[in-house]
Amino acid sequence: MPDYSRFMSKRVEGLEASEIREILKLLERPNIISLAGGLPDPATFPVSEIAEIARRVIEERGASVLQYAPSRGVSDFIEAIRLFSERFGLGVRRDDAILATVGSQEALYLAAEVMLDPGDYVIVENPTYLTAVKVFKYRGVRFLPVPLDDNGMRTEVLEDQLRRLKSEGGRVKLAYLVPTFQNPTGVVMSNERRKHLLELAEEYDFLVLEDDPYGLIRFEEIDVKTLKALDRGGRVLYMSSFSKILSPGLRLGWIAGPEEVIAYLEKAKQHVNLHTSTLSQYIAAEAIRAGIVERNLPKLRELYKRKRDAMLEALEEYFPREARWTRPRGGFFVFVYLPQDIDTSMLLRDAVERGVAYVPGASFYVDGSGRNTMRLNYSYPSIEAIREGVRKLGELLRERLGG
Amino acid sequence: MPDYSRFMSKRVEGLEASEIREILKLLERPNIISLAGGLPDPATFPVSEIAEIARRVIEERGASVLQYAPSRGVSDFIEAIRLFSERFGLGVRRDDAILATVGSQEALYLAAEVMLDPGDYVIVENPTYLTAVKVFKYRGVRFLPVPLDDNGMRTEVLEDQLRRLKSEGGRVKLAYLVPTFQNPTGVVMSNERRKHLLELAEEYDFLVLEDDPYGLIRFEEIDVKTLKALDRGGRVLYMSSFSKILSPGLRLGWIAGPEEVIAYLEKAKQHVNLHTSTLSQYIAAEAIRAGIVERNLPKLRELYKRKRDAMLEALEEYFPREARWTRPRGGFFVFVYLPQDIDTSMLLRDAVERGVAYVPGASFYVDGSGRNTMRLNYSYPSIEAIREGVRKLGELLRERLGG
Repeated sequence: MPDYSRFMSKRVEGLEASEIREILKLLERPNIISLAGGLPDPATFPVSEIAEIARRVIEERGASVLQYAPSRGVSDFIEAIRLFSERFGLGVRRDDAILATVGSQEALYLAAEVMLDPGDYVIVENPTYLTAVKVFKYRGVRFLPVPLDDNGMRTEVLEDQLRRLKSEGGRVKLAYLVPTFQNPTGVVMSNERRKHLLELAEEYDFLVLEDDPYGLIRFEEIDVKTLKALDRGGRVLYMSSFSKILSPGLRLGWIAGPEEVIAYLEKAKQHVNLHTSTLSQYIAAEAIRAGIVERNLPKLRELYKRKRDAMLEALEEYFPREARWTRPRGGFFVFVYLPQDIDTSMLLRDAVERGVAYVPGASFYVDGSGRNTMRLNYSYPSIEAIREGVRKLGELLRERLGG
Repeated sequence: MPDYSRFMSKRVEGLEASEIREILKLLERPNIISLAGGLPDPATFPVSEIAEIARRVIEERGASVLQYAPSRGVSDFIEAIRLFSERFGLGVRRDDAILATVGSQEALYLAAEVMLDPGDYVIVENPTYLTAVKVFKYRGVRFLPVPLDDNGMRTEVLEDQLRRLKSEGGRVKLAYLVPTFQNPTGVVMSNERRKHLLELAEEYDFLVLEDDPYGLIRFEEIDVKTLKALDRGGRVLYMSSFSKILSPGLRLGWIAGPEEVIAYLEKAKQHVNLHTSTLSQYIAAEAIRAGIVERNLPKLRELYKRKRDAMLEALEEYFPREARWTRPRGGFFVFVYLPQDIDTSMLLRDAVERGVAYVPGASFYVDGSGRNTMRLNYSYPSIEAIREGVRKLGELLRERLGG
């Protein structure tokens, strides 16, 4: 057999396997409680409704549903997204173009493909979504990492950074944010900061990529608008997904933004895979039209709220007093800050030996910091597993902290 | 609004929209007979069976079917592909790895992503699949175009080219072929030439990407094996699709090859979109297991054979005697060679004015030749449309040729 490595492109050096997915492999061992994932609870899938919709759209419109589709997306789906945006106030504009993507991951990939050259500056929350970091790094970009607090990205820090960068002749091209129920921290960016960010986008001339997979998974009312809805300057590309509110197995996401930008994403998508599953698009369109997504939300919020509560209670009960953590009002994650002498990457092996896993927080930081943090997921494990997992972790941490 | 072009990467210059897809847009005008596409006839979709399978797999296994899946593919699908390969003699080896992709287009994209650097040499049939050319060009490769005859790629010409290239210090990395019912010509590469190609792959040390979307759509027995089945050296990556034999709307393809190479494709796929639709994979797995793909083939072959016959008859009847064309024993296309003074790109506008469209053959050549050729599709239009379209085209051509 040939030595295949000789046939690989120079590019593959930049392709690391997803750390989270590697951890998930580790978790195939039995009896491990995983607080490491980010999967939705399958109990939230409206199984019978989707089964019936799938049967019906194929039976009734087979020639369209089973055929090739336009790269942009099928018109039923695009129209459903516009309806969806209106119903939930997502702020997609009448003149925005929409592209159907294979999960919102693909929207992220395509945006990076058509917008980012090596050396370009990208603003990110620090910490931020792990796979976004990987996709951006693969493009050879430079990060402008901005710290977070309970009100999201600290835009006053960003403003200082932008001023300094400008004085050095640098220019930012893109800001990537998960402003609502952020991954990994669960925090919500305040309206004031959202507006400030958009002012900075105008002043310093950059575009904003708003990633919003969790916005509808809220446990209480939050008084914020999407960046897309606040945007007056045509600066925001908004992307979301059906993975957390309907079914990840459809592998369906979308991105909305200025026609000129979306047209490039579409061209890139023609290279990648021509178009997104026609069947998935018709199922989602019908699920929106028939109100199934909408009716599913209260049940889903109720379930995740109970899980969030269970995790917060267990953290209070079992975690050492030196730890602090976020108290998310929606989304899938709690983020934990530990004393500086705890390195959660080092600790993971011991945790797994005791039967519990999490994601070391450093993976979400772009500047090597955050070694004393961890992300805990409550959406997938059962309430019993959440309690037991947090108990085991708390025990380990108390031992390490000697108290 | 900002000038969005300032935010695009240098890469977008290489992103042309697919010419075929642009033509398809043109065809949304009513009353145009399109011989330009490459769509399957929706009459071949086993609509009721797919509808029922979709309902059943979701109803019975909703938690798995609607959930995230491994990047490699769900195990039911991977196993079904192994069964499928055995049943149809595709030659996937026990030690080959398999990756589920969003159509075989994605397999092509990922292979280019992980294997091709700018300046690399890629062997292609000349003419070859248009979108492959685009994907390869986007990577900045250099082509080694090899002419075809009725027995496929002329490997004796390739051998000369390889010898010359080697003497100049050049090295080929990859050969891309559609050896069976080739797109655009419909020809089948002979077993002798297949073996010769694989000998050359060993001698000149390159890998082979075998693209086989049409192999099962045969109107008579053909005495050839896949390159994959003939390969002893571990040189062949084999890719195929369910778009032509089940449904393109599932957007489902796959690629099989050495674990070491597929592992890189998988990593690249994690960046692009994490994984392929779980639902599509389960539907195809069940359609294979239950024999639906197999039972569908005779009907599909019969339909396409009648359409092929209709096109060949109409060509005999209406085309000028100076024209010659291929006589495909399978697949979707007839390729027409016209006298050198006919430029089919120039002719297209007039053809569309008269109500018929085709793809100018030059699009499929990598060296600027083939301006006197055209690709005609018979899989999608009705038999009446095939006859009428060929008649209109023949009329136009006779006028041009003054006879």
